[in-house]
Order: sequence, then C-alpha cells, then structure tokens
Amino acid sequence: MGERIGFVGLGIMGKPMVRNLVKDGWEVVVHNRSRGAVDELSGESNNVIPAGSPREVADQVSMVVTMLPDSPDVEDVVFGENGLLEGMNQGDLLVDMSTIAPATSISVNEALSERGASALDAPVSGGDKGAIAGTLSIMVGGTEADFKRAHPMFEVVGQTIVHCGEAGAGQIVKACNQVVVAIAYEAVSEALVLGSKAGVDPEKIIQVLNGGLAQTKVLEMRGPTMIEHNFDPGFRINLHRKDLGIAMSTGKENNVPLPVTSIVSQMYEQLVANGHGDLDHSAMLKVLEAAANHEVSKH
Amino acid sequence: MGERIGFVGLGIMGKPMVRNLVKDGWEVVVHNRSRGAVDELSGESNNVIPAGSPREVADQVSMVVTMLPDSPDVEDVVFGENGLLEGMNQGDLLVDMSTIAPATSISVNEALSERGASALDAPVSGGDKGAIAGTLSIMVGGTEADFKRAHPMFEVVGQTIVHCGEAGAGQIVKACNQVVVAIAYEAVSEALVLGSKAGVDPEKIIQVLNGGLAQTKVLEMRGPTMIEHNFDPGFRINLHRKDLGIAMSTGKENNVPLPVTSIVSQMYEQLVANGHGDLDHSAMLKVLEAAANHEVSKH
Repeated sequence: MGERIGFVGLGIMGKPMVRNLVKDGWEVVVHNRSRGAVDELSGESNNVIPAGSPREVADQVSMVVTMLPDSPDVEDVVFGENGLLEGMNQGDLLVDMSTIAPATSISVNEALSERGASALDAPVSGGDKGAIAGTLSIMVGGTEADFKRAHPMFEVVGQTIVHCGEAGAGQIVKACNQVVVAIAYEAVSEALVLGSKAGVDPEKIIQVLNGGLAQTKVLEMRGPTMIEHNFDPGFRINLHRKDLGIAMSTGKENNVPLPVTSIVSQMYEQLVANGHGDLDHSAMLKVLEAAANHEVSKH
Repeated sequence: MGERIGFVGLGIMGKPMVRNLVKDGWEVVVHNRSRGAVDELSGESNNVIPAGSPREVADQVSMVVTMLPDSPDVEDVVFGENGLLEGMNQGDLLVDMSTIAPATSISVNEALSERGASALDAPVSGGDKGAIAGTLSIMVGGTEADFKRAHPMFEVVGQTIVHCGEAGAGQIVKACNQVVVAIAYEAVSEALVLGSKAGVDPEKIIQVLNGGLAQTKVLEMRGPTMIEHNFDPGFRINLHRKDLGIAMSTGKENNVPLPVTSIVSQMYEQLVANGHGDLDHSAMLKVLEAAANHEVSKH
C-alpha cells in the first residue's frame, strides 16, 4: 500500500501515527519544530526521512499531513518562512489533522487553492491511545476527490472515517463533539456530587445511570476513575479549554448562542486558574465538588 | 410465583405493570382515582380485584405498590381519608414506584414504621415502553430485607434492579438520572444547532458523535427523530420539569449547587410557557433553535 507522504508535527499524537504509517509500508518525510522526535523516528526506520523545514517536506512529496496543537501553529507551518505553502504546487494535498478554528482551515484551504493545491481539515478524536492503536475517529472537511485520495492514509491511522462536508466541516463537527463531551462531564459531575452528598454510594449511581437513557460514554469510561479522583490524562483540560474556545468562536461567527457550553468553558477556566490545566478533562468533577464543599467517595 | 398484591395508580405506567403481574400469575387488588382503568383491568382477568379506596386495597394484602404522578398524589393516597396508612399494619410493605421528592419518601417511610409497617421507594426509568415490556430500570431505597421481599415483584416488571441505599436513596438516584438526561439533551441540542447552522448535515454530526467519547444514549435514541422534529412522547416535558424540580430541591436541602441543571430546568420552563409541555423531552432542541433563529434539517 505504502507510498511517500510528508508529516509535520511529531508530538504525542503525530509520533505514533507516523509509526503506524511506517509499519504499513509508507515512506514518511518528517519535520518537527524540536529535533528530538525527528531523530527518534528516523533512528527507528530507514523509511523515516528527516527534513529541515516544512518546505523541505513539501518539496519531496505530494501529500503532507500536519498534526499540530492549535491554529497559530498551523498558520506558522503553512504561511511562515520555509513553510508548506512555499513548497506546495499544482496537485499537492495538505491533510491537516490538527484541531483548529474552522475559519483557519478555510483560509489555509483558500491559500493552497490559489497555488493549484488543496487541503482537507481532518481533526481526530480518540487521544493518544487511539493514535497508538490506529483507531482514531476522523472528521473530514473538503472535496470528495481529496477525501478519496487521502482515504488509504486515513485507514492506517483511524477507524471511523467520516466525510462531513466541504472545507471546515471537519473542524465544525469536532467542535460539536467537544461541546457534548464537556457538557456530559459537567452533567455526570452534578449527578455524582448531588447523589453522593445526599448519602448515596456513587458506584450505585454509575451502575443505574449506565443502564438507561442517562448512559453516556464519559460516565462509562471515566466514572470509576472520577470517584477515585484519578485525573491522569487522557485528554488535558488545557486542550479541551482551547477546543471550547473554538466552539464559542464558531458559535459567535454563526450567531448561535451556546448558553451551557459558555458556562462549562468557564468551569475549565476555573480549573486552569487553580493550576489544574494538565489534569484529565474528567476533573470537571472538582469544580462541582468545590462548589458543594463535598468530596465524592465510595461507601 | 404469583401471590396476592395491591396496586394503586393505574395510569400509563401502572396499567401495563398490573397486566404483567397478572400474566405472571399474581392476584392484584387494584384501586385508581378514576374508575375506568379499574373496570378495564378487572374485565380482562378474574385475578384483578377492584377495591373502592387505597385503604380497601391495604386491608386485603400485605404488600402494596403505588405508581402515581407526583409527591402530593402519594401523600393523598397514603395519608388521606381511607388512605393506605389506615389499612397498613405490622409487617405490611408499601413499594412506592412513583418519582417523588426523597423527603416525601422518607416521611412516608417514617409514618409506616410507626405502625410496624415499612416502605421502599422504587422509582423507575424506561417509560411506558419499558412498563409494557417489563424491562424497567428500578432504583430502590429502603432496607435490605424489604428489598429482598419485593424482589420477585420487581423481576416481573423490571430488568435492571438496583438497591441504592436506605429510604429515599432510590429517589435520589432517580433525580441524578433525570439531571443527566436533561443536560444531555441540552448538549446534543447545542451541538446540532451549532453544526447545522454552520453548514454541516446533522446526520453527519450524529454519526461522528455516536462513534466516540461524545456518545450518549439520548443522541442514539432520539437524534434521528430530533432532526425530523418528531417530538411525540416518549417522556413528556411536563414530567421532566417536575423531576428537575425535585433535583433542584434535593440540591438545596443538601447544599449542592447545580448550575447547569438550574439553567436547563429554565429551558423546560420556557417550553412549558410556550405550550410545549406535552412534547417529548427531546424538544429541548426547540429552545436552542429559537435562540439561534435556525431550524436543524437534513441536507
């Protein structure tokens, strides 16, 4: 299956994704702002080829994947000096798998189109575990033709692969996803604190809620660790806070009031302000516990 | 298995529960405020025995089930003239399957205890469909001995049967359940309106969200009907509004702030004020649609 592909951004997500591509027989031209990850991966396989800049990556391939933390990072890598834009020409494809503002995805797409190239926004969910296992969910915005072209690569790194619509649509659906996850954590936190402070064993609450209409994946996956106050990430509050910022901006741009997302994002601000930005996003529980002056615990 | 049991409250839930008990071989002494349902059920089987008042029910059995709309209805049936309390004595058991305030459950339990009788609070979830199918989830508060005594009856009408703790604990867990369900509807409503107004097909949003950490049973069960604006109940807003009132009161009694439950309950007030109290609780979507001046629809 393997062909040659570029990859910029070798962090907690990018590194295992590159490993999965190499394992599948791809040749991967890589760049990362700090050199350590480049050396590590190129030391593991001859099919990892180091490049000195995003432009040098683009010069050697016709498809480049980016996996970066935030909108400004993507703008730097694309529009900056020795950036991707300088190296991408007619027929080249950028697959940006970062979670960034839909508006940024659209402007990247437009800039590439002017050069005869194109872009997909393809943010993922599933975290580092999903990246390692190659089971990410991928939400894709862009043309049908580009979606088909990138599909063999998506199949290596992901499992649920959905073409959501035109440029920016992947980021919009990712924003919707993060809205629901954050609010769901708030909901189960209110329930756990209410029930526990009123005298009920929180394990009973989890058992009952998971059996009916109140079932949520967040309670299923994280309920047991929440009542143990184990907030090892998983997915960090700092990142979810960024994602809710994207959701709120997208709401504003489209005149969509998001009353509960707004409150819940302030709760993540509260956690960051108190030094908890590196905890797992299920630490939302701490906000409700502090409000009620009550710590949830097993009976 | 069947023994003789009493049943007061033959509404949308009570009627199919009595039918399931009769089918399982139980003799059921029934009472209902309006006579129609009593005649209907006693016309169907000789094992349904009509009684003229709650007291007349209690006089003929040692275990009575109540399934009533709200706290005042339970208070009437238990404490009112010719109420259950007058007919319940040493060793008798009341199994109240209504969803009411935990404080009311506790006061009913105390009043019965003074007569040597006892009570379980055993609210259910699963709606009329669950009542008909005999697959209700049952959240039980009371002593272990009473829980065991009622268990054969629970097994006829329910599927997930959880002993949550002492008197009132069943109601507390039910309140937690209703908090999560209401907030989950709000969350998916924000996501559907945000994504749809930003140009994405809501069916894509449902598909992606159901595949990952954003998965919720409410979106799974009701997402497709929500985007068709089919709000046939199901579970009516009027009832969920009552249940959130119980949750808010329980929060207040226990000094537990419930910031998002509070807002979401105001959204149900808005729907009731606009004449939508008899719609399914998934009609929460209408609040967010009205706020954004946008109707979610398929592409």
